[in-house]
Amino acid sequence: MHSPSNPIGEFDLIERFFKTGTSATEQNENIPLGIGDDCALIKQATDSEIAITTDMLVEGRHFFAGADPEQLGRKALAVNLSDLAAMGAEPLGFTLAIAMPKADIAWLEAFSKGLLDSANLYGCPLIGGDTTAGPLTLSITALGNIPQGKAIRRSGAKIEDDVWVSGNVGDARLALAALRHEIPLSAEDLKQVEKRMHQPTPRIELGIGLRDIATAALDISDGLLGDLNHVLKQSQVDAQIFLNQIPKSETLKKQSTDIQNQFAASGGDDYEICFTAPNHQREAIKKLSKSLDLPLTLIGRIIPIKNKNPQVHLINSDGATMSAIESKKLLQSFDHFSS
Amino acid sequence: MHSPSNPIGEFDLIERFFKTGTSATEQNENIPLGIGDDCALIKQATDSEIAITTDMLVEGRHFFAGADPEQLGRKALAVNLSDLAAMGAEPLGFTLAIAMPKADIAWLEAFSKGLLDSANLYGCPLIGGDTTAGPLTLSITALGNIPQGKAIRRSGAKIEDDVWVSGNVGDARLALAALRHEIPLSAEDLKQVEKRMHQPTPRIELGIGLRDIATAALDISDGLLGDLNHVLKQSQVDAQIFLNQIPKSETLKKQSTDIQNQFAASGGDDYEICFTAPNHQREAIKKLSKSLDLPLTLIGRIIPIKNKNPQVHLINSDGATMSAIESKKLLQSFDHFSS
Repeated sequence: MHSPSNPIGEFDLIERFFKTGTSATEQNENIPLGIGDDCALIKQATDSEIAITTDMLVEGRHFFAGADPEQLGRKALAVNLSDLAAMGAEPLGFTLAIAMPKADIAWLEAFSKGLLDSANLYGCPLIGGDTTAGPLTLSITALGNIPQGKAIRRSGAKIEDDVWVSGNVGDARLALAALRHEIPLSAEDLKQVEKRMHQPTPRIELGIGLRDIATAALDISDGLLGDLNHVLKQSQVDAQIFLNQIPKSETLKKQSTDIQNQFAASGGDDYEICFTAPNHQREAIKKLSKSLDLPLTLIGRIIPIKNKNPQVHLINSDGATMSAIESKKLLQSFDHFSS
Repeated sequence: MHSPSNPIGEFDLIERFFKTGTSATEQNENIPLGIGDDCALIKQATDSEIAITTDMLVEGRHFFAGADPEQLGRKALAVNLSDLAAMGAEPLGFTLAIAMPKADIAWLEAFSKGLLDSANLYGCPLIGGDTTAGPLTLSITALGNIPQGKAIRRSGAKIEDDVWVSGNVGDARLALAALRHEIPLSAEDLKQVEKRMHQPTPRIELGIGLRDIATAALDISDGLLGDLNHVLKQSQVDAQIFLNQIPKSETLKKQSTDIQNQFAASGGDDYEICFTAPNHQREAIKKLSKSLDLPLTLIGRIIPIKNKNPQVHLINSDGATMSAIESKKLLQSFDHFSS
């Protein structure tokens, strides 16, 4: 599908907006070759493995049409780094494939600024990519290093393990509700929760710190309990989760108990880490929390599987297990093929 | 941007259509972990580097709306493997991010069949990915192994080097012209050239064979001469190309000389390898050509740079250098941001 040239072409775009990202790679012994060839080259550290993750963000689905491009650039990388963090990997570099309707210079300037700022902040240079015309779509593949055998998989949760979550959850869902005018929020509260929605913080240091502590981990992108289900499924265990122990921000706590529980339990876009660890690691986890200045909250425990399909048993504030029907509305995870 | 579940969800899609790709990884010592976690894990061979390439394919731009999904699956992987081939890398694995308007079961079955057939054929398992709703867009990131320091970069072309190209070029462009009803073709001829368009063959064995022979290489996706310009720019050299030495298929040779030259020189989608090598490698290249049963054709030579911007000097059939104006129409490369 060929066509003649236009004023600003694909190669100019990469040179002009994204190639600055390789300046970091030129002094980076892990990246012998960055942008500009058929492939980039990565050198793996001795006795380590490379973790790889891919996320695709589509306008109108993962971000609003007209979203602030600088914030979008930051977030696009952050959500991938969050996956690296959940494995305990240290960022090495990333590739970007981007389709956009036309080469919008102002948009590209802001987007690449956000993206490359984030890349610098987390020491994860842009090493290659592809640009094309098309509906606005971003696809990032991030690579990270991890000592051999130290990756924190979803399949490692053991019966009696504690279930933990970092930070607090539900704020991004609250921001979405406010932006959709479903829930009124004060300007200040909206600002707080919007920041959580637009500027998630990949928990990289936490992931690294958990390498020798956690038995399983994953990042919460589609809702705490829905995502926890992936750990349960792969580990073939159930979990008890104490609903009122799920950490919520002061802003979310201003909402009704129902909204609080629903958003914290199943709101997406939080990018915190949910992990399991043996009881004897509690002290180590408290120390890690303190050293990272990041709350880590015990929210439940792993129990033997009750049925064929692993599940979360929600414990309400009086210590009773909620019925399947009660739980169901909290357990709905975000699904990209829902209408 | 959350929404409730629907009959076939994201996780089902991966399980059902793409996870079979990991069966290969389960016996693959290079891939300790495939689909189903936050990240996949790759183990690099000792003393080697990992080559990474990303391509994004958008419906209506890189493939026709309604394109055969099985062929599309094959091609989507092949074009990425072609980039690995151009570096001299051996495929390790790939990730797929796919946006599609709805979960179309028949389409997914055919697409994943083509994709995974191709993955098996080239020993390059699917190790991770992302699926989402959105306009049909595919983004593949492929990874390959290459012995340390052996990658064939675009920047290595030296004055006096020969310029070579594999196979023949221009057929995919001829197919496009026929499908657009710009040029009439017999059903048999169309079948021949369409095959080149829809089923490109990544020249992996060639790339591996060229590791100790070529000084520079790249794959021809946007047109021979336009792509060659990237080698010239990065190597800071010019090239003389003998127009009538560019290899063309018997089908293309039935067209007018103008069409032949234009399509062979600047038609895209060929996925052959253009490379440079010192004169003393001619015998080695002939041997490699024979052992791979793949024509390798000497089409020009590298000369000192004449102006600030490296360029191709086209030599016509009477040995004269073509004027800039004559050359220009042949040198137009495909640009994804042209209208």
